[in-house]
Amino acid sequence: MATKSEPSILMLSLLIVVIFSSLPSLASRPSTPPSSSSKWAPRFLGRFAKPPKQNQQHQAQYRYETRYFSQRLDHFSFSDLPSFQQRYLISTEHWLGPERLGPIFFYCGNEGDIEWFAANTGFVWEIAPRFGAMVVFPEHRYYGESMPYASANEAYKNATTLAFLTAEQALADFSVLIRELKRNLSAEACPVVLFGGSYGGMLAAWMRLKYPHIAIGALSSSAPILQFEDIVPPETFYDIVSGAFKRESTSCFDTIKESWDVLKSEETVDRTLKKTEDLSEWLESAYNFLAMVNYPYSANFMMPLPGHPIREVCKKIDGSPEGTGTLERIFEGVSVYYNYTGGVDCFQLDDDPHGMDGWNWQACTEMVMPMSSSRDASMFPTYDYNYSSFQEECWKDFRVKPRPRWITVEFGGHDIKTSLKKFGSNIIFSNGLLDPWSGGSVLQNLSETIVALVTEEGAHHIDLRASSSEDPDWLLEQRAIEIKLIESWIHNYYQEKKAISNM
Amino acid sequence: MATKSEPSILMLSLLIVVIFSSLPSLASRPSTPPSSSSKWAPRFLGRFAKPPKQNQQHQAQYRYETRYFSQRLDHFSFSDLPSFQQRYLISTEHWLGPERLGPIFFYCGNEGDIEWFAANTGFVWEIAPRFGAMVVFPEHRYYGESMPYASANEAYKNATTLAFLTAEQALADFSVLIRELKRNLSAEACPVVLFGGSYGGMLAAWMRLKYPHIAIGALSSSAPILQFEDIVPPETFYDIVSGAFKRESTSCFDTIKESWDVLKSEETVDRTLKKTEDLSEWLESAYNFLAMVNYPYSANFMMPLPGHPIREVCKKIDGSPEGTGTLERIFEGVSVYYNYTGGVDCFQLDDDPHGMDGWNWQACTEMVMPMSSSRDASMFPTYDYNYSSFQEECWKDFRVKPRPRWITVEFGGHDIKTSLKKFGSNIIFSNGLLDPWSGGSVLQNLSETIVALVTEEGAHHIDLRASSSEDPDWLLEQRAIEIKLIESWIHNYYQEKKAISNM
Repeated sequence: MATKSEPSILMLSLLIVVIFSSLPSLASRPSTPPSSSSKWAPRFLGRFAKPPKQNQQHQAQYRYETRYFSQRLDHFSFSDLPSFQQRYLISTEHWLGPERLGPIFFYCGNEGDIEWFAANTGFVWEIAPRFGAMVVFPEHRYYGESMPYASANEAYKNATTLAFLTAEQALADFSVLIRELKRNLSAEACPVVLFGGSYGGMLAAWMRLKYPHIAIGALSSSAPILQFEDIVPPETFYDIVSGAFKRESTSCFDTIKESWDVLKSEETVDRTLKKTEDLSEWLESAYNFLAMVNYPYSANFMMPLPGHPIREVCKKIDGSPEGTGTLERIFEGVSVYYNYTGGVDCFQLDDDPHGMDGWNWQACTEMVMPMSSSRDASMFPTYDYNYSSFQEECWKDFRVKPRPRWITVEFGGHDIKTSLKKFGSNIIFSNGLLDPWSGGSVLQNLSETIVALVTEEGAHHIDLRASSSEDPDWLLEQRAIEIKLIESWIHNYYQEKKAISNM
Repeated sequence: MATKSEPSILMLSLLIVVIFSSLPSLASRPSTPPSSSSKWAPRFLGRFAKPPKQNQQHQAQYRYETRYFSQRLDHFSFSDLPSFQQRYLISTEHWLGPERLGPIFFYCGNEGDIEWFAANTGFVWEIAPRFGAMVVFPEHRYYGESMPYASANEAYKNATTLAFLTAEQALADFSVLIRELKRNLSAEACPVVLFGGSYGGMLAAWMRLKYPHIAIGALSSSAPILQFEDIVPPETFYDIVSGAFKRESTSCFDTIKESWDVLKSEETVDRTLKKTEDLSEWLESAYNFLAMVNYPYSANFMMPLPGHPIREVCKKIDGSPEGTGTLERIFEGVSVYYNYTGGVDCFQLDDDPHGMDGWNWQACTEMVMPMSSSRDASMFPTYDYNYSSFQEECWKDFRVKPRPRWITVEFGGHDIKTSLKKFGSNIIFSNGLLDPWSGGSVLQNLSETIVALVTEEGAHHIDLRASSSEDPDWLLEQRAIEIKLIESWIHNYYQEKKAISNM
């Protein structure tokens, strides 16, 4: 099928050139399992988390000071290791100060440059004034400027230097930083509220669970803390991506589903086309990404995109004149995506001095998220998760052995309803069901104060973004509930403090 | 004063000979700050935690299997380090098994040989049958047979090899062990209840807080989790020890209080007596220890002692004929203590290959417990805690820099009422007010399910000991409440499980 009007080699080559000149980061590694590699689960957005200059101009500019804090490399041993400088952004502009117990809003930095996250987390900046809150954005170790061993080159040298890039160490960094910040400001009694999206949302939830004495609550947005082991079915992610396309149009879904074979047959037609595999991977990444940022209005998260971008992609795929070949339709479709990105710099490669990459290391060590692609519900090539080959590739790339069961030992996940029903408090798990990561997140209330906010039309941590005149009602409502809940945490904290000091 | 009838040099030398031949471990290190060293906080009982053969015969013999489990040396990094074998004792004799969700009673091994703790924690063994519980006693890393680097010699070689002797690593050991044990037995759904006394009680409480998904509750007996930084006044410990003596007799307290100067003047009289300082330290240790095991009936915890041993000591001190000198009285008094110990082997030194010692390492790294001796309320020489000299001695001994604020960053402690009032559940903090460690423990309920059981007449984790015909009513009652609470945890857990599986 679809062999008559296949796009010319020229067109495909052009496509690849566009890909490689505009978004090399997407294609530079196999980033989805279905095609050739079993290794990489889909990425969060952090991969792109270095501010593209053009985009930056369109972002709201928030005012903060940049500071550095000396951290231990291993908080959990007394090995004699060099310390490193953790960068953090701080604004006390609206802070009520220590006497009035002004809150501290603390964003759990995730896998990328913290300035970029600060620029893309408008919600925190916007609500800080009404709470009289200080705002702190600490950078995650091994990302951005927060490099152990003085440089990314050294930090990413090998498994020995990368060994301390773990979530637990990052949480300890945050905790030590908060403690010392508070000490310096005589602000020990000020309540800390955590925020985070994606992996940062996982960190925020885990930190509230592990360091309840440090932070009184956490807004954990789009955080797939259950995407480990067999807690959710491994097909979940790709099924949701696929569902987002099917929801717009069955024929769009079908066209994409049949395109993989066509792409393969292209390869047999022209054996000089070495990049077919990369092309498949890039297409898969593009679909995943489109599902994550399937926002209801035009947004400029990684790149400028129209509102309901999947709808737009499918319109193109479906709308081509009769007789248009499969690949040509696909090409038309994803042009919605890459056409917008022509101006984006090659912003990832220089973060990645040895072909290594922080998130890949994390995925190969702790963040082992099994992913399969189902036969029917998925529009991607069928694929069964294969731990052995995953492990082999991690060994090849990093000389490290993954610990696939560690995260749930350390942070839980299995049977989370029983274990947290009477334990813990003050966590919001917010999710949009269009987001493929929602499938591994907490979508039901676990207790009275560990609550799930689920929106039908939401995508990847849209609630953390700056407000916009185009915000739909459900988003306004979601944010209002979040504000109310955070207010109640702080209010209750003040009440407790008062009750105890009156005793 | 008290210079006329000072004990002869012979008598003092004899005393020292007795000390060194019977209980060298007590005197081999400065173990209390007041005299010469600022370094050592009083020890828990674990110092002695190798089974004295004679005592062992009198202990109930519990049946268990001894097994070994391979553990990572650093759970929180991916450094390429050798694994080690953790020993654990296990009994499934009374276990209901996985289908009936039989509970798992898990004792958090503390700073010593686990067989000794198993022999001295009769409560767990005695109540296991009525719960249909499995019993597991895992050994703490770097103690007993659970040595990294294959031997104590290697493990205790230097700061590099000792680096991984931390409480957090021990908790991770426990958590990984439980997870793998359950997996092997298909017992994932079986509820785990933690037990621990002293440092082990701290571990139990911290583990319930940090790994709520692994264990449903903890009985944390005599666990001074607040004995850090400035959370409780540094005089607390010695004031309580002193109070236990004053309570029996003011003149006893006074005699001890004046004895230190007399001892010092002895030193000036006979400069060949190099051991005066050691003698002071041994006396201090003896008093501390007597306060800890000031049980209401004769017991054989470390050594056979009469009931109310402090009363007996004071009877001797006070009851000597008029004209008896201070040191002679002291000598008569502590004979209650060491006379019982003549048969005890030198059981500590061989645990301590390089003059190093696990607990001293822990005290020099994380477990920094400031201790002062007050001018009036304490019967010990006045002493103000001095962190600088403490730090210096740690550097001299181990080449390690303490982290005095780390424990409260990792586990909390400051303002614990506010932080745990609405967070956490199912912890019993049991304490006897005679125990000097009770001053750094949780003595008030923190919430409905984080409760304090305080007994006026109790001493160091007496509730964990095997029942005895001499148990006073308050102890029977305390244990009955503990059993009831544990029953309620398990009952609630079963209810939750049922409710969720019915959903």
